[in-house]
Amino acid sequence: MSAENAFRIDVDASPETGGPYPVLLRQGILGSLPAVVQQSVAAHRWAVVADHTVARLHGERLLDAMREAGLETQLFAFPPGEAQKTRATWAVLTDELLERGYGRDSAVVTLGGGVVGDLGGFLAATFLRGVPCVQIPTTLLAMIDAAIGGKTGIDVPAGKNLVGVIRQPRLVLVDPDVLATLPDVEFRNGLAEAVKHGAIADASYLDWMVEQRQAILARDADAVAGLIRRSIEIKAGMVAADAAEAGPRALLNFGHTIAHAIERVSGFVVPHGQAVAMGMVVEARIGEMIGVTRGGTADRLCAALEAVGLPTTLPGRYGETGDLLEATRSDKKVRASRVRYALIAESGRPARSADGDWTIAVADADVLRAAKLGSTTISRDETDI
Amino acid sequence: MSAENAFRIDVDASPETGGPYPVLLRQGILGSLPAVVQQSVAAHRWAVVADHTVARLHGERLLDAMREAGLETQLFAFPPGEAQKTRATWAVLTDELLERGYGRDSAVVTLGGGVVGDLGGFLAATFLRGVPCVQIPTTLLAMIDAAIGGKTGIDVPAGKNLVGVIRQPRLVLVDPDVLATLPDVEFRNGLAEAVKHGAIADASYLDWMVEQRQAILARDADAVAGLIRRSIEIKAGMVAADAAEAGPRALLNFGHTIAHAIERVSGFVVPHGQAVAMGMVVEARIGEMIGVTRGGTADRLCAALEAVGLPTTLPGRYGETGDLLEATRSDKKVRASRVRYALIAESGRPARSADGDWTIAVADADVLRAAKLGSTTISRDETDI
Repeated sequence: MSAENAFRIDVDASPETGGPYPVLLRQGILGSLPAVVQQSVAAHRWAVVADHTVARLHGERLLDAMREAGLETQLFAFPPGEAQKTRATWAVLTDELLERGYGRDSAVVTLGGGVVGDLGGFLAATFLRGVPCVQIPTTLLAMIDAAIGGKTGIDVPAGKNLVGVIRQPRLVLVDPDVLATLPDVEFRNGLAEAVKHGAIADASYLDWMVEQRQAILARDADAVAGLIRRSIEIKAGMVAADAAEAGPRALLNFGHTIAHAIERVSGFVVPHGQAVAMGMVVEARIGEMIGVTRGGTADRLCAALEAVGLPTTLPGRYGETGDLLEATRSDKKVRASRVRYALIAESGRPARSADGDWTIAVADADVLRAAKLGSTTISRDETDI
Repeated sequence: MSAENAFRIDVDASPETGGPYPVLLRQGILGSLPAVVQQSVAAHRWAVVADHTVARLHGERLLDAMREAGLETQLFAFPPGEAQKTRATWAVLTDELLERGYGRDSAVVTLGGGVVGDLGGFLAATFLRGVPCVQIPTTLLAMIDAAIGGKTGIDVPAGKNLVGVIRQPRLVLVDPDVLATLPDVEFRNGLAEAVKHGAIADASYLDWMVEQRQAILARDADAVAGLIRRSIEIKAGMVAADAAEAGPRALLNFGHTIAHAIERVSGFVVPHGQAVAMGMVVEARIGEMIGVTRGGTADRLCAALEAVGLPTTLPGRYGETGDLLEATRSDKKVRASRVRYALIAESGRPARSADGDWTIAVADADVLRAAKLGSTTISRDETDI
């Protein structure tokens, strides 16, 4: 990675969610952590929250650096996996912090993927009515998505992320070095969100990804840094415009209503990125069907997704039953009991409803038809019906 | 109560905690609830949170009014008492709301005292990353203290209110009619906070309470409305100045470090108001001892507290052992492992530390000496030592 790949993006988040904060990317920035965090956060005790896997890979290095700099730092680790993103884990972490004497002068550092970021962010937001949080995402998905925007949350039996708050971190640190240990399926989870950023905001970014597909998949440092930068810029722009998610931030849900339904119907066996990839295709087809999305958009999206190794067709059984449809109903985006979708007008440009809304209510029949279309091989002619 | 006792106070809370909102007081305002809440909150479903006692006393009336106005409203009730202010009750309420199909278009109405306000406020703040909250306090304490300022929270094994967020309600409605059913001990809990408001911000308010003591204790409508109004004004002023509690809001903790310790040492048998009354006297004596508080202030405070029927001396055993001191250490206000107190310079005027801080670090020996003094009958001469 060349030196000019180090960058800083300021997220101009609204005051009601915690105000502006910087995202810093630099290769090896984990090693200079103490100096960087102390500039942004005045705290006397630091709680590093991580799962056991990430703690083993990067935790000791980080703790050593903090302690060498004279910062009182302890590790709070728990087993890996989405199954840990619960009220129970949050309660255990809270009680452990209290037991070890953490007070209002402490700060939480989350080191990990989306689960750790969401859970650790919620911990920081609710501990003694809120202590500062520094997010250090270690997956591509968390770097370009979960760590930016202040969404924190935990899962409950009724669904994912149904409990939480929106509260910005004080600082986000991205060290692309940590991606070296990221499994391929996790890396592609991140790429699905990058494609989404292109789809909702920047068609040329989508084209760039297709061009750079080999470098991206080979995790070439320049290509990866370029991708992280552009994706964070797009997400940060939407967060700034609308931190409370009343308006344009809803666009970030493109593909996600169907994706969440796919994850639910599969018993959370389908990885998030694959579900988002399939979800975007189905939602683009929904848009084409109801005349909101320009014809050919779904196919263009398919090409981009396939270029970076992501699936574009649903396993047959998802499109053939009403299960998927039923699963969309338990999504948070149900408003006044109708399911609304964030759709695009064409690649790189969002759609708006007739009354200017950022989401569009869709009839069940259209959802089902798009899912069925998406679950078989589609010829160009059929798509344009 | 005369018509001019109906009033509106705007709490100019900072954006990062949720922004400004009105407090409305009017006799019988519960009956006109639907019109009032609809003006401030756009929601399709309303969840009224209350304990069984308050639900029985006022819940049905409120629900009937909401339903007659065509608002979809349901009651979510739980057993009364501080023992319910837990993560478990919060989890049950969250899951019940989800089960009954509450989505982002819903709002939470808390109907009750501090426990319900704190717990219901935390529920609203964390449900689907936050839905609007309307606070309807039914105790004097909640009307003038807990419902104003956006503090929400629950208790954990390590202590009270150690988990929560600061998030302002959209609206606070005070109907003094509901005080008719309030037990005397609860009414006096509220009076202790009113005395505190006088002690930290307005000596003439303290004098007024002494003058009006008979009318206040007889719950004369004019006297009670006057007291609620002045106390809310004082609290609202401090919330506006400092919603995140970094500065002057700390003054609201006057008397509370010792009060929390008394409650803890007593196994939470001493009612909060009595603990606060005793705590203020001890903390005033601490201030006099270390030269921060003008001599005679503690005695003046005693006179005001006694006028409204509140205790001013600690049961002997509290002052004689180190238990009380130990209990102050687990308070949230411990910063960098030193116990800091919000003290007053004299009646109606706060004290500042040498470096301008709103709290002052106190040596254990001084705390212990003041507690010992406060636990025996003190003559004027001894106090002035």
